[in-house]
Amino acid sequence: MEELIQKGNLAKTAALSLSSVSADTKRDALMYVADSLIKNTDYILNENNKDLEAAKANGMSPGLIDRLTLNKERIETIAQGIRQIAELPDPIGEVVSQWQRPNGLLISEVRVPLGVCGIIYEARPNVTADAAALCLKSGNACILRCGKEAHKSSMAITNVFRDAIKSVGLSEDCVALVEDTSRDSAVALMKLNDYLDVIIPRGGAGLIRSVVENATVPAIETGTGNCHVYVDADANLQMAKEIVLNAKTSRPSVCNAEEKLLVHKDVAESFLPDMLSALLKKNVEIVGDSKVCEIFPAATPATEDDWATEYLDLKIAVKVVSSVDEAINHINKYNSRHSEAIVTEDAENAQKFLDSIDAAAVYVNASTRFTDGFEFGFGAEIGISTQKLHARGPMGLKALTSTKYVIRGNGQIR
Amino acid sequence: MEELIQKGNLAKTAALSLSSVSADTKRDALMYVADSLIKNTDYILNENNKDLEAAKANGMSPGLIDRLTLNKERIETIAQGIRQIAELPDPIGEVVSQWQRPNGLLISEVRVPLGVCGIIYEARPNVTADAAALCLKSGNACILRCGKEAHKSSMAITNVFRDAIKSVGLSEDCVALVEDTSRDSAVALMKLNDYLDVIIPRGGAGLIRSVVENATVPAIETGTGNCHVYVDADANLQMAKEIVLNAKTSRPSVCNAEEKLLVHKDVAESFLPDMLSALLKKNVEIVGDSKVCEIFPAATPATEDDWATEYLDLKIAVKVVSSVDEAINHINKYNSRHSEAIVTEDAENAQKFLDSIDAAAVYVNASTRFTDGFEFGFGAEIGISTQKLHARGPMGLKALTSTKYVIRGNGQIR
Repeated sequence: MEELIQKGNLAKTAALSLSSVSADTKRDALMYVADSLIKNTDYILNENNKDLEAAKANGMSPGLIDRLTLNKERIETIAQGIRQIAELPDPIGEVVSQWQRPNGLLISEVRVPLGVCGIIYEARPNVTADAAALCLKSGNACILRCGKEAHKSSMAITNVFRDAIKSVGLSEDCVALVEDTSRDSAVALMKLNDYLDVIIPRGGAGLIRSVVENATVPAIETGTGNCHVYVDADANLQMAKEIVLNAKTSRPSVCNAEEKLLVHKDVAESFLPDMLSALLKKNVEIVGDSKVCEIFPAATPATEDDWATEYLDLKIAVKVVSSVDEAINHINKYNSRHSEAIVTEDAENAQKFLDSIDAAAVYVNASTRFTDGFEFGFGAEIGISTQKLHARGPMGLKALTSTKYVIRGNGQIR
Repeated sequence: MEELIQKGNLAKTAALSLSSVSADTKRDALMYVADSLIKNTDYILNENNKDLEAAKANGMSPGLIDRLTLNKERIETIAQGIRQIAELPDPIGEVVSQWQRPNGLLISEVRVPLGVCGIIYEARPNVTADAAALCLKSGNACILRCGKEAHKSSMAITNVFRDAIKSVGLSEDCVALVEDTSRDSAVALMKLNDYLDVIIPRGGAGLIRSVVENATVPAIETGTGNCHVYVDADANLQMAKEIVLNAKTSRPSVCNAEEKLLVHKDVAESFLPDMLSALLKKNVEIVGDSKVCEIFPAATPATEDDWATEYLDLKIAVKVVSSVDEAINHINKYNSRHSEAIVTEDAENAQKFLDSIDAAAVYVNASTRFTDGFEFGFGAEIGISTQKLHARGPMGLKALTSTKYVIRGNGQIR
């Protein structure tokens, strides 16, 4: 695809020049981008209006319309986000480790940018600014490809971004948005191995699956969260209730929300009626195994599919288990390797759960909702990796870097 | 593919149990594997003979026959390699970082195994033992798939390995060799996402390209090395000559061997005649740009293809450049991101080269041949990554691990 090869070439050249730009210059550039976005609010909102009109004409759902909508306040929030990224410590140039070999070679492992990042996302214009800022801060050029419904808004933001960094002396080609919004351009971007060092999807399960299946560029799988809370026999039941309510209902549409509740049989009868009534009051639909339906008749029977499904909605599947081992086996069978929690006062069971659960984040006595770059203190987040290669869990700036070995000798041969 | 799903299920279960096995047990198991391989020398050699007979009947080249051949001494070398891996520090369980959040959550980043590793390689039976030992030491189960020419030898080694670890109490399913040697089984393994956490090719450019193009499992691209040595205007020319001779001729068939020589125009006439004569004496075929052919008539003209080709042979392409910048641009255009060297006494040019070259390892005044897990002091090597994600450069045990976040709270909700 001609457009991608052209953008790939420009991005590769921009990335090489950006890799040696000073921390201060990158910081100042992002500050100027934030100012420029606010200065160009009218232009951006005008373009966003065109997207919104088309979306409404095509019958887009209210939830998606909301995610697509920009306004003065949201642009200020986007600018504020960029300023926060600007102020983060620069990850590039850090000497990660250094040692001397017996032959005198001095080996240093130095943190460097990845190079050119491809970011594929959906109809959310704010991701344009956020992803571009994270890439620039970590010294990477980026090629963005957004859903066609947000293309005019994203192009406006990209144009402002490019003009701003160009006016402070950086290459505008550090940031590019793919103009072709066909599905073909997404797949072509996933296979742009000669130009991209990584491809990161930011969006729903369908997008992520498409990247995993189609990408030949190294990809980072992000985001699906079929998260469990297991309430052990020795749990503080009041704490358990608060954690479950929070994990399930505080923001059910996000990947770190709870989707499943497992309860030890010894506390099922004392815990479930009160717990499930509280969830019902929050309009949570409850499905459960036969024991749960027996204890709490408002629950309907769960199917095999329920255990593997990420609802992203006010719905929960509940199961009674006979031991922490059964809970662990169930979770390792059905989870998506995202976030899992045990509520218990039993230190041995807690340790067993932490050791045995295969997930990016494993909690004792806390809500799964904390799996988040900001909550972890990273100051930013490009996504939450559910794979084990390169980065796992919330990805901050460091996840957008690699290392290289710098070796200094005085004539060593082998 | 039924066989792979079955092996995948067994490996996944084995990996979960292996993830909490103690460092001592893994060490002892590998020591016992080494002893068992030696004890079973006759059985292994007998199976290797069957492979060798078939290979000779099929007209395999002497070089490949040599790589396929086992004998008593080579089995001892394999066993010795496993003992060395056994004695390395265990990477699993290390607390990589730990911090407390203002809300009291204690977050620990803990090193864990990847899980199940797929390793695809060619007709080299020694890789069977080496890859299985590295995976076991780092707490991973592995599914191995070797070239059909080495299948009987590899199966013999796998059988001995499995029996040995089973007899010390580990699951034999920590190590498996795919029985189906069709090309279909290789591609199916690359797409075994439900069971594999990573796939690593160990072999030539064709195999690596096939993995990059076909794998949906996260892959680590290894091994291609179109490596350059650049001799700067301020080089110590005697040092440069020794480095080039070593990098080109000490082992031309490996990925860290030099393939290209760039020389600054100011020293071309004083350096090249002596340098290229020395290479000729070592039977190196020399191609060059017009300037090189003029200075050294025994050189023949290089084509555009030459600059991008990894010869893996006694052949070198030589070019005269007018500056360190031209050298950097040429290398970044044609290299395979493996290992690059500058020979110079000019500190500024050295730093510019280190900063600007995009490669896993960048050298000043040393041979590219040092890019190697053992030479780096890692004690082992599963391959040399030429990608930027997860691992870059020589990969030791740590490259076969991931991390997980362990979070301890006392009822925190968000």
